[in-house]
Amino acid sequence: MSDSRPIGVFDSGLGGLTVAREIFRLMPGEKIIYLGDTARCPYGGRSEETIKTFGIQDARLLTDYDVKLLVVACNTVSAVALDLIAASCKDVPVIGVVIPGSRAAARRTAVRKVGVIGTAATIRAGAYTRAIQGFDAAIKVYGKACPLFVPLVEEGLLDHEITRHAVQYYLAEVLDSGVDCIILGCTHYPLLMQTIQEMVGTRTQLLDSALWTAREVFEILKSLNGLAAGKTGGFSESRFLVTDYTPHFKDLASLFLGAEIPSIEQISLEKLTKPCSTVPAAA
Amino acid sequence: MSDSRPIGVFDSGLGGLTVAREIFRLMPGEKIIYLGDTARCPYGGRSEETIKTFGIQDARLLTDYDVKLLVVACNTVSAVALDLIAASCKDVPVIGVVIPGSRAAARRTAVRKVGVIGTAATIRAGAYTRAIQGFDAAIKVYGKACPLFVPLVEEGLLDHEITRHAVQYYLAEVLDSGVDCIILGCTHYPLLMQTIQEMVGTRTQLLDSALWTAREVFEILKSLNGLAAGKTGGFSESRFLVTDYTPHFKDLASLFLGAEIPSIEQISLEKLTKPCSTVPAAA
Repeated sequence: MSDSRPIGVFDSGLGGLTVAREIFRLMPGEKIIYLGDTARCPYGGRSEETIKTFGIQDARLLTDYDVKLLVVACNTVSAVALDLIAASCKDVPVIGVVIPGSRAAARRTAVRKVGVIGTAATIRAGAYTRAIQGFDAAIKVYGKACPLFVPLVEEGLLDHEITRHAVQYYLAEVLDSGVDCIILGCTHYPLLMQTIQEMVGTRTQLLDSALWTAREVFEILKSLNGLAAGKTGGFSESRFLVTDYTPHFKDLASLFLGAEIPSIEQISLEKLTKPCSTVPAAA
Repeated sequence: MSDSRPIGVFDSGLGGLTVAREIFRLMPGEKIIYLGDTARCPYGGRSEETIKTFGIQDARLLTDYDVKLLVVACNTVSAVALDLIAASCKDVPVIGVVIPGSRAAARRTAVRKVGVIGTAATIRAGAYTRAIQGFDAAIKVYGKACPLFVPLVEEGLLDHEITRHAVQYYLAEVLDSGVDCIILGCTHYPLLMQTIQEMVGTRTQLLDSALWTAREVFEILKSLNGLAAGKTGGFSESRFLVTDYTPHFKDLASLFLGAEIPSIEQISLEKLTKPCSTVPAAA
């Protein structure tokens, strides 16, 4: 049995394309409908209430496209609103990026000390701590918000002196705590992996939540007999939707995706925010 | 004659509070209704179409409060959508932050070379260049987008090694062009003034568009016989509206305003984005 429907993937902006990239690598036959809410990104500094509202709107739009699985490829939304989204999309399995990375970290830490870096909202929500300690309550988790990393990536300063100073600034304290694993808890951060790895040294493992999420997508679809029949061609049939299209966007998108996006479709914010009686209020 | 109605001031987020601060300093009797669209900030990386839509919505909300003057305290909106907003708010004088700073620079440059730093959208729109050359067509204008400055200010790294590296990174080329004035074309940047001044040296003047805008507000109200009758107490009667309220907000707000905000009122995005037949479409 197989399922030819697309996988829905959304993020506040571009970052979730790192998750899409890993899905295409692992399952080249799968097609994706991607939504980036680029008119309102980034979500990472906003209140929980606003993140819930925006996350529900994003999820609702993608479920209108008859997706077979919904991936919340935004750490901030995954950390704050995953249960709410799952409850409001009962007909579609919903997975976030927090659990897969947390499971990998819980299995890999030898010293039972794990670092998590992400946006202010992700760290404040504490979802990684709860998820990791759900796998092993004895693990200590050290979270650190790194608000400069997203703008540094979006400036293309992946391996620049400013970025190395910022990595030092944010990670010194996490390293002092003796962790042996650090979860990159934001979909922008894989682009900084090399620079971060140089600073933390080879004895500290960096875990890319995008990679582990793609593996979880594979396992779930396999268990549901829901993988696509074809083994190639998913990328060229995929669609990429944004709520705002800027001159800077296309170059950055290919940096995140590792390939040129064939076409980008702009949808109106009104379409995203239209009232819908089938979805519970986000409060 | 006098006018006791409030002045409306809006920005995508917090930055416009630097304009409010200068208005209170110059005209302590004036009260302000401030709007920060903190659920959708920053605007600086968005497309012109989206900036126009958001700017119109912000302006419309403030005119509903019967303001006597509307200050577009957002450089990005001023650079992209000021004419559109003025056309849609015919009953209220509308001023932006681009013209006042440009006039000051045109008067002050001895070498007729002016630098302008701002967001990507502000620089791309070229409004400062047009405004400065409108005052003196022989002046050469060197614009530079500095997307890291806003997040650096919001991280509170006003005088930090990372910030000094970023200032060096963005301003080296502008200084090489031989300018003797640089306009701080973003309402966040006055908070970096000291760090930028140290880097550029005392022979380069930094012009704070917030300060020059407040002076223009005074001149306009005076010419219209529209100043408030009282000479004190405006601040305590002012109102501060936001579309999203985060834990980080209040501390940052006092940093920008130079005083503690008495109360912050959250308004819903729905209130901001509601359709309105009296306002032309922003396309």
